[in-house]
Amino acid sequence: MENLKDYIEANKKRYLDELFELLRIPSISAQAEHTQDVRKTAEWLRSHLENIGLENSKIMETKGHPVVYADYIKDSSKPTVLVYGHYDVQSPDPLEEWESEPFEPTIRNGNIYARGVADDKSQLFTHIKALEAIMKTSGQLPVNVKFLFEGEEEVGSENLDEFIKEKIELLRADVCLISDSNALSETLPMMEYGLRGIVYMQLNLSVMPKDVHSGAYGGNVPNADFELVTILSKLKNSETQEVLIPKFYENVRNVDDKEKQELKHSMITDKTILDETGAKEIIGVKGFSAIEREGTLPTLDINGMHGGYTGDGPKTIIPAKSSAKISMRLVPNQTVAEITEKFVSYVKSVTPSYVDLEIKSLSSGEPLLMGKENEFFKRAEDAFQESFGNKPVYELQGGSIPITATLKTLLGIDSILMGFGLPDDGLHSPNEKMSVSMFYKGIETSLLFFQGFEK
Amino acid sequence: MENLKDYIEANKKRYLDELFELLRIPSISAQAEHTQDVRKTAEWLRSHLENIGLENSKIMETKGHPVVYADYIKDSSKPTVLVYGHYDVQSPDPLEEWESEPFEPTIRNGNIYARGVADDKSQLFTHIKALEAIMKTSGQLPVNVKFLFEGEEEVGSENLDEFIKEKIELLRADVCLISDSNALSETLPMMEYGLRGIVYMQLNLSVMPKDVHSGAYGGNVPNADFELVTILSKLKNSETQEVLIPKFYENVRNVDDKEKQELKHSMITDKTILDETGAKEIIGVKGFSAIEREGTLPTLDINGMHGGYTGDGPKTIIPAKSSAKISMRLVPNQTVAEITEKFVSYVKSVTPSYVDLEIKSLSSGEPLLMGKENEFFKRAEDAFQESFGNKPVYELQGGSIPITATLKTLLGIDSILMGFGLPDDGLHSPNEKMSVSMFYKGIETSLLFFQGFEK
Repeated sequence: MENLKDYIEANKKRYLDELFELLRIPSISAQAEHTQDVRKTAEWLRSHLENIGLENSKIMETKGHPVVYADYIKDSSKPTVLVYGHYDVQSPDPLEEWESEPFEPTIRNGNIYARGVADDKSQLFTHIKALEAIMKTSGQLPVNVKFLFEGEEEVGSENLDEFIKEKIELLRADVCLISDSNALSETLPMMEYGLRGIVYMQLNLSVMPKDVHSGAYGGNVPNADFELVTILSKLKNSETQEVLIPKFYENVRNVDDKEKQELKHSMITDKTILDETGAKEIIGVKGFSAIEREGTLPTLDINGMHGGYTGDGPKTIIPAKSSAKISMRLVPNQTVAEITEKFVSYVKSVTPSYVDLEIKSLSSGEPLLMGKENEFFKRAEDAFQESFGNKPVYELQGGSIPITATLKTLLGIDSILMGFGLPDDGLHSPNEKMSVSMFYKGIETSLLFFQGFEK
Repeated sequence: MENLKDYIEANKKRYLDELFELLRIPSISAQAEHTQDVRKTAEWLRSHLENIGLENSKIMETKGHPVVYADYIKDSSKPTVLVYGHYDVQSPDPLEEWESEPFEPTIRNGNIYARGVADDKSQLFTHIKALEAIMKTSGQLPVNVKFLFEGEEEVGSENLDEFIKEKIELLRADVCLISDSNALSETLPMMEYGLRGIVYMQLNLSVMPKDVHSGAYGGNVPNADFELVTILSKLKNSETQEVLIPKFYENVRNVDDKEKQELKHSMITDKTILDETGAKEIIGVKGFSAIEREGTLPTLDINGMHGGYTGDGPKTIIPAKSSAKISMRLVPNQTVAEITEKFVSYVKSVTPSYVDLEIKSLSSGEPLLMGKENEFFKRAEDAFQESFGNKPVYELQGGSIPITATLKTLLGIDSILMGFGLPDDGLHSPNEKMSVSMFYKGIETSLLFFQGFEK
């Protein structure tokens, strides 16, 4: 272990330089003009994995962006850990709100600022660097390892389920290790035992072939923006915040008092949420705590909407078309199929016949709940205890990591969600950051986790 | 008159070439990057007026885009006609819906396609060419003329009222002549005796400093798009189409049966509106005909709205900010001040305290009603009778020409609204057009109107 620590200390600067290389490639999976950047990132990772000594490294095609695979399989009597991460990132807009360029990583106040630094490039990189350190110092790994890095997480991992189904033998493992979440602080780690699912839809409305003059036709023709507003206003009760889609809550899991009691240990409170977001008030369904809302309640949000003229000054038109992106976060035992069907049928039922309505599914993922008694969870707890000085708090996550549900279904394995971010990293927002010290602490924790298999 | 007709016939091609020059300058008044193009257009017009023999031609500054002025004042015993037009144009977006370039005029099927061709460049140009023909053939004009071309009509003529107030002596006239509207067909002219006013507002909402992750915070924080939707949904009853702002209709003029009977001669019907717009149904307040809704009822429309992520694919954020442009068309005896106050106070009253709300006025104009017994209206009727073969139908216009109300208030004069467009010209929309034959018919009608003063 001394060797290892020396190795890491001696290479810290290089780790950061390499991470910066990775961050400079704008691997925005949602935007067609960045398709080549996404592939370039995959190739960068593949060649990096090969260079540190992993085997069978390859780019594997899907119908969308490619998957990066590599492995180290030496001893079939030992367990196999599948390390998952995603190398794609969210769009950086609104660009004007960034204090430094989103794809030119910059360190300020001990933080690295860059799009995708916390979500998920520096986090996946911790495991690469931990395994590199072990291999360079001892010449081998104490466990079998497979890497699976995908390039479509930010667009809903659309092709990953099919990929995993096709490559199920290649990917078979005993547990999955994922760092794509956060600790509660620099000394208090956190592990999630459940994640929300998601159904993400787009509505496109059209009431006329083209925009018309609001003076000549105002008062006589439908307005696409108003039609959209009317539909959207019927999705959620603006007073109670309850979703109005019939039977939306019907399959929501009943959380017992014991679990509610445990959730009270969460650091996620009304106050932390107000501090982190800058919102003036908590706006949510009454009668629940912040962590209960995040972990045990489904949501419905408008993620974006656009219709008509939105440039400078006035333009006197009645919009012909209007669109909205709407996502619902699901909790057990809601399912993607069930909620998709309820959403589509309700939206159709509240859309007038003179409105042309197109509903598209943009992404989806099932919700997941895992048992906490898993032997690998215990190993992760021990690693955290040593690196952070505390055992992790168990929480339910409001976000979605679609692969976790897929792995549970297809491979029957749980996922260790070993988060190295911090709650205020600003994922998906301008000025996304990752603390430099958390990056190094991530490498240390990963190292301890893998070294643990020597015992 | 024979001389005149020969002159026009001999110069028809040149008129079109000159008009095309004018159309090629993208004088989009709403967009800062086109400020120089707007000025270039003003200078083109000024020098054109000078070249055809008008006097005192000049560019006159306002706080915004400049005014073009020129005159011909020879005989104080004769009346003075103030010719008004606007040389600025609407933004051409959405660009992808244009079949030819908006600023490269193209003739197809007897129509000129270009942004601003009907609204208002070819229409103001008819009067210039008519007066040129008279001056070139007879060496003088039978009436005093003043030209006033503004560059801010499409952004609400913000600085025109003040300009007119300051230059009231320079602009004093007996009647104003405006061609910025349409005939009902190539053989049926139309003159408006009333126009709607307008109050055009922008709402900017903010609930947090920046967008946040919809997984981490969904269910606990406000969503700017939903807050906007909730406010907008309270502005108009989606069933009855009635505006819900308290006392909004309180000052709407009562239209008597005689006037309703006259309005029935209008060519504006449910069918023409459906044909022209391509809407599937008339959506308006029940119990009124199409022309009654357009001419005698106020409206409230969303002209555009935007909030959150609207690019390709999914982005899992909760929007921090959301905006909408909203315009209300006013009818007599509503006033800009009254409706602005009612709108602002109602929107504030339905906005929750955790939402930061900014309300901006983008433009406004008073509604107008004129008497039809005006002597100049009779002269216009005669000119129309000769050029179109029919006397004009009198109508109320749904649109707004803010200067008409200003001239009534400040100079006490009515405006002759001599429209040469056609109902399907697509003002403010992609593929705006002007019929070539209507352009020439406009020149002929203007010529007859001015020649009429010889009698």
